Amino acid sequence: MEIKNYKKDSFYSYSLGAFPTIELLKKHPQDLIKIYVHSSFKNEEVLSLINTLRGNHEIEFNDKMINKLSQKENCFIIGIFKKYNTPLDSNENHVVLVNPSNMGNLGTIIRSCLGFNIKNIAVIKPGVDYFDPKVIRASMGAIFSLNIHYFNNYDEYCKLFPNHVKRTFMLQANKTLQEAVFDKNKLSSLVFGNEATGLDDSLLDNNSIIIRHSKEIDSLNLPSSLAIALYEFSKQTK
Amino acid sequence: MEIKNYKKDSFYSYSLGAFPTIELLKKHPQDLIKIYVHSSFKNEEVLSLINTLRGNHEIEFNDKMINKLSQKENCFIIGIFKKYNTPLDSNENHVVLVNPSNMGNLGTIIRSCLGFNIKNIAVIKPGVDYFDPKVIRASMGAIFSLNIHYFNNYDEYCKLFPNHVKRTFMLQANKTLQEAVFDKNKLSSLVFGNEATGLDDSLLDNNSIIIRHSKEIDSLNLPSSLAIALYEFSKQTK
Repeated sequence: MEIKNYKKDSFYSYSLGAFPTIELLKKHPQDLIKIYVHSSFKNEEVLSLINTLRGNHEIEFNDKMINKLSQKENCFIIGIFKKYNTPLDSNENHVVLVNPSNMGNLGTIIRSCLGFNIKNIAVIKPGVDYFDPKVIRASMGAIFSLNIHYFNNYDEYCKLFPNHVKRTFMLQANKTLQEAVFDKNKLSSLVFGNEATGLDDSLLDNNSIIIRHSKEIDSLNLPSSLAIALYEFSKQTK
Repeated sequence: MEIKNYKKDSFYSYSLGAFPTIELLKKHPQDLIKIYVHSSFKNEEVLSLINTLRGNHEIEFNDKMINKLSQKENCFIIGIFKKYNTPLDSNENHVVLVNPSNMGNLGTIIRSCLGFNIKNIAVIKPGVDYFDPKVIRASMGAIFSLNIHYFNNYDEYCKLFPNHVKRTFMLQANKTLQEAVFDKNKLSSLVFGNEATGLDDSLLDNNSIIIRHSKEIDSLNLPSSLAIALYEFSKQTK
């Protein structure tokens, strides 16, 4: 089987770098295809850990393949895996990203979600490909520790999870996060819109929230808004 | 005078895009050198605003220059300005960035600071060049609304602002942000380390703070940590 540079319709993707690859090996061993290591990589501790975790999967020292797949990144270990399907857990809180458009942002958001124990992320299409190696790298491998799933539109998501209280983060909201109350006895979905366009006005209701900030900026950037919301939510519901 | 692609030792820099250029014109008109506009730019409202704000400064329609300076970015307006010096206000709260290494991160942080009314940022060398057009663009022009200043080392900063309570954000801290108390009657400096290495152990004291997060990630990313800290700080001290 010949491994090519990632495309959206590839049935496999890959983790670039030792740390994300170790996360892949720990969390999705069943989906591993193979591991490439650069011949100049000499960290015995990491090699030994990978050897322990790899099960029956092959390690191939292949500098040409590493250079091809890693492109401009400085990277010595790559894990190839079959893309997998992780439905969301209906008994847990969710983050819902409506039409996210930036791969680096999505990776950063995934990492923050794991940092605040939100392990279920809905991505409403159209949205970036969460299995793109750029997302995996920006997440620092955090993506392998949570459930992430596409939905064709927001209604489809809402119909599947009717019991989650939808907290839509919108500049049009009246209630500020600084005053908002989260009920730890109910399931919540923290819902965020696209980087440039936010959420549609039609989603504004009494559960909508704005993160109050000065009038000198139009908005906070998306991963920063998410981080703030996750912090406040986890503080109230832990 | 011939404008060349930005280098760290250039005496001028430039804002890429209409929005950051309007911020430049509003906040630093005295430092403006000239404005370039692409001939295909037809937004009359923006052109009229720029015309009102430009004072005696020239607008030049110059597609070749726009293409040269904007490189891969999609950009139609560029404002050239003299780099200026903005000492920090000793009567205001500060953010202190020790050895920041990523331009996009620095721009995002500047924008978040303005969003939470922190208008004084110290950058401890070595750190990225805050006048690099990449930083200005990532800040969306927010950099023009605040004071930002280099210090050769952290001690130099501390000696100049002895009355600021230094709150160092460190993974080694015992006190969590979730429990921390900020005294609104005292001046504060929120101090953050380099993306990869954080702050040196020697800065750990009773004022150090950790943003509590799950053990499943090593750390939050720097702009996300800053955003969370600014949110909590502003909530307590507004």
